[in-house]
Amino acid sequence: MSTPSRDDCVALDRDDPLASFRDDFVLPAGVTYLDGNSLGALPKTAEERMQNAIRQQWGQGLIRSWNDAGWINLPTKLGDKIAPMIGVGAGEVIVADSTSVNLFKLLIAALRLNSDRRTILMEARDFPTDLYIAQGVADLMGEDYECRMVPTDEILAALDESVAVLALTHVNFKTGAMHDMAGLTKRAHSVGARTIWDLCHTAGAMPIDLAAAKADFALGCTYKYLNGGPGAPAFVYIPTAQQPTFHQPLTGWMGHAQPFSFVDDYHPAGDIKRFLSGTPNILSLVALEASLDVWAQVDLNLLRAKSMALGDLFIELVEARCAGHGFILASPRDATARGSQVSFRHEEGYAIMQALIARGVIGDFRAPDIVRFGFTPLYTRYVDVWHAAEVLYDIMATRAWDTPAFRTRAAVT
Amino acid sequence: MSTPSRDDCVALDRDDPLASFRDDFVLPAGVTYLDGNSLGALPKTAEERMQNAIRQQWGQGLIRSWNDAGWINLPTKLGDKIAPMIGVGAGEVIVADSTSVNLFKLLIAALRLNSDRRTILMEARDFPTDLYIAQGVADLMGEDYECRMVPTDEILAALDESVAVLALTHVNFKTGAMHDMAGLTKRAHSVGARTIWDLCHTAGAMPIDLAAAKADFALGCTYKYLNGGPGAPAFVYIPTAQQPTFHQPLTGWMGHAQPFSFVDDYHPAGDIKRFLSGTPNILSLVALEASLDVWAQVDLNLLRAKSMALGDLFIELVEARCAGHGFILASPRDATARGSQVSFRHEEGYAIMQALIARGVIGDFRAPDIVRFGFTPLYTRYVDVWHAAEVLYDIMATRAWDTPAFRTRAAVT
Repeated sequence: MSTPSRDDCVALDRDDPLASFRDDFVLPAGVTYLDGNSLGALPKTAEERMQNAIRQQWGQGLIRSWNDAGWINLPTKLGDKIAPMIGVGAGEVIVADSTSVNLFKLLIAALRLNSDRRTILMEARDFPTDLYIAQGVADLMGEDYECRMVPTDEILAALDESVAVLALTHVNFKTGAMHDMAGLTKRAHSVGARTIWDLCHTAGAMPIDLAAAKADFALGCTYKYLNGGPGAPAFVYIPTAQQPTFHQPLTGWMGHAQPFSFVDDYHPAGDIKRFLSGTPNILSLVALEASLDVWAQVDLNLLRAKSMALGDLFIELVEARCAGHGFILASPRDATARGSQVSFRHEEGYAIMQALIARGVIGDFRAPDIVRFGFTPLYTRYVDVWHAAEVLYDIMATRAWDTPAFRTRAAVT
Repeated sequence: MSTPSRDDCVALDRDDPLASFRDDFVLPAGVTYLDGNSLGALPKTAEERMQNAIRQQWGQGLIRSWNDAGWINLPTKLGDKIAPMIGVGAGEVIVADSTSVNLFKLLIAALRLNSDRRTILMEARDFPTDLYIAQGVADLMGEDYECRMVPTDEILAALDESVAVLALTHVNFKTGAMHDMAGLTKRAHSVGARTIWDLCHTAGAMPIDLAAAKADFALGCTYKYLNGGPGAPAFVYIPTAQQPTFHQPLTGWMGHAQPFSFVDDYHPAGDIKRFLSGTPNILSLVALEASLDVWAQVDLNLLRAKSMALGDLFIELVEARCAGHGFILASPRDATARGSQVSFRHEEGYAIMQALIARGVIGDFRAPDIVRFGFTPLYTRYVDVWHAAEVLYDIMATRAWDTPAFRTRAAVT
C-alpha cells in the first residue's frame, strides 16, 4: 500500500472536527510550524486583550485595576480554567512563577511531608531544569539528601522506601515517550513516596486525569501547547485535601492569609493561594487567558485522536520518503505511548533542522542529535505534516543541509 | 509667610527641567496620580512595543525570536540598563522573577557565604514580603536559624557577630523613612555580616550608589518608580567580584553554563546569569524596556531635587490647610532622610483615601492607619501636589469621607 498522498491529507483536514480552531491562531505565511511544543502560536485575541490590559487597565485604571479589573484574582481564575484540562477541580490549580521555581516549591513541600526520607528520585535525561532544580534542592537540604537520577527502565526498581518523592516529566521532551502516570503513582504510594508530575509536554496535548491517577502534585508550563506566550507563567496542582499540610518555602506576601494586613508574621492562606510568592505578573496572565478561552471549547479526546494520527502519519511518511538517509526513530512507534511529538535521531540533526527552518518548516533540535517535530492539533493540519515530510526528503536528497551556514550554532537551539 | 499658591506651583512647573518627561507617560484625564510608588504610570511607547512583540516577534517570528529578536538576552540587557541608575556596572544586574523569589535566592546565597552564622537581621515593619521570605528561609535552613526582626532604632545595636546577613529595605514602604545604606553596610561589614538592600522604593526615586556604599547584594521591583507594568519582574545586583562564589538554590536551566547542551548535571554560568532560574517572561520584559529607555535620558540628581521639593511642598500644604483634622506626619520631615513619598497617619485613613480616590486623587492606604502619597518626579507636577492638598482639605472640611461606602474594604488596598 502506498503512503498517503497530499490529496489524502487534504481530505483528512476536510473531515477534521478540530479544523476550525486553526482560525483562532496567527500563523505566518510560508511557514509550517511544528514547534508549538516549544512555543505555542499566538491566539488571535491575545493582541487585543493585551492592548486593553495596557491601554485601559494599566494606562487608565492604574492601581485601581488590581480590584476593578480583577488582576488580584488572575492566578486562581486562570488556574480554574486549566483545571478541567488536567482532570481536577476548581481551587486546585494556580498560575504563578516559572516551572523551575514551582518545582522547587513543590519538591520542598513534598520532602517536608516525608521528612524521614532523603531521596528525590528522577529520570536521567529528563528536562534539564527539573534535574537541576532537584539537585539544587538536595544541595540545600543537606548532605544526606540525594537527587537520584536513574535510566527510564530502572525507575520502577529504584522506587523503594528510601524515596521521599518521585518527580517525573510525564512526556519526555526529547523523545516524546510517555510514562504510565497512574501505574508509577500507585507504585510510588505503595512504598510511601509522593509524586510530582511535570506536565510541560502533556497539558494541551491530551486529556489528563490527575485525580484518577492519584497524583500528589503536578505542574507545567503554559507557553508550549497552552499557547500562553514566550516565558508565560506556569501552573501548579495541589489537591484540596493536601492544601492544609502543604508548606512551601517561598513564603511571599501573595501567599499570606491576609496580604493587605501588612503584619510582620507569615501565616499561609488557607487555600491554594499559599502557593503564591510575589506579585503576579499581570501582563503575561492576560496573554495566557486569551489562549485558555480557546481551550475551553476544545474536546480533548478529539485532540488526542488527531495528535496520534498526525504523529503516526509523520512517522509513516518520513520512514517511507527518507529511507536510507540515516534517521532513527527516537519516539515510541506506538502512539498511545507517545506525547504529541515525533523525534528522530540523526548525526547531522542540527544542520538538517537549520535547513528545514530555512525552507519554512520549523521544528527544533535537541542536543546531541535529536530533530524534534511537535504536533499541535489545534492548528497543525495533515497537509502540514505531509509538506514537512516532503521538504525533509528534498533536503536529504539534495544534501541541502550540508553547508557551513547550517552548522553554525545559535545561542538558543 | 503664606503657603504656596496654585500660581506659585504653575511657575515651579514652568521652570521644572524634568517637565517634558510627563509627555512620555499616559495619565488619565481627571486623575491626580500619587501612587506611582505602587504601580508606575504607563510609558507611551509600551503599547506599541508590546504590539510589536506580540504581533511580529511572537506571531510571526515564533520560536525563532529567541535568537532573532534577542529574547534570550533580555534579562541581562535590561539589567545593564538599570545598572547606571543604582551606581553599578554592566554585567552586575539582571532582571528575573519577583522581588520575593529573588530575595529568597539572595538570602540563601548570603547565608552560604557566612555558613557559621545563623541570624538574618531585619527591621520590624519592613515590607511584609521581605519579612515573610526571610522567615521562610530561616524555617527551611533549620531550627538554629533565626529571622530576627528588630525596631528601627535597635538595628545598629543588634548588628553583632551572630548576624550572617542584614536585609533591609532602603526606604520604608509605609513611612518613606530612608536608611543610611553606606553607614549600615560599613557597620555590618565590621562585624562580618553581609548586606542585602531592597531598593523597591528607591530605584527610580533617587540616584543610588551601591558600589560606593559597598553593598553586597541588592534587589528591587520594577513596577513602582521604574514603570515596568503590573507585576513586572524584579532586578538583582550581584557585584562582579561576588559572582564566582554566589550560589543560589533555584538552579534552573537558564542559570546553567550551557543551557542548550541539555546535560543532566547543573553547572552554574560563570557570570550573573547564574542567578536565573526558569524561562524569562518575555512580554513583561518588553514592557519594562519601554520605561527603561525613558529612564536612560533622566538626570537622577535633578530627579531627586524635584522629589524632595514635591514632598516638602505637600507636607507644607497639608499641615497648613488640614491643621486640626487629625493628620500626623508619618514620614521624616527632613527630605534628605525621606524617599519619594509622604505618609500621614489618620485613624480614618482608609475612608479618607477612598474619598480622595473618588475625587480623582489617587494615593493609597496602608494598614492600619497610613495614607500614603507617592511623588514620581517624571510625571508628577507641583500643581498636582497643590491640587491633592486642596482636595484633601475639602474632604476633611466637608467630612466627605464619612460614609459607609468609603469604609468598605476592597480586596486590594
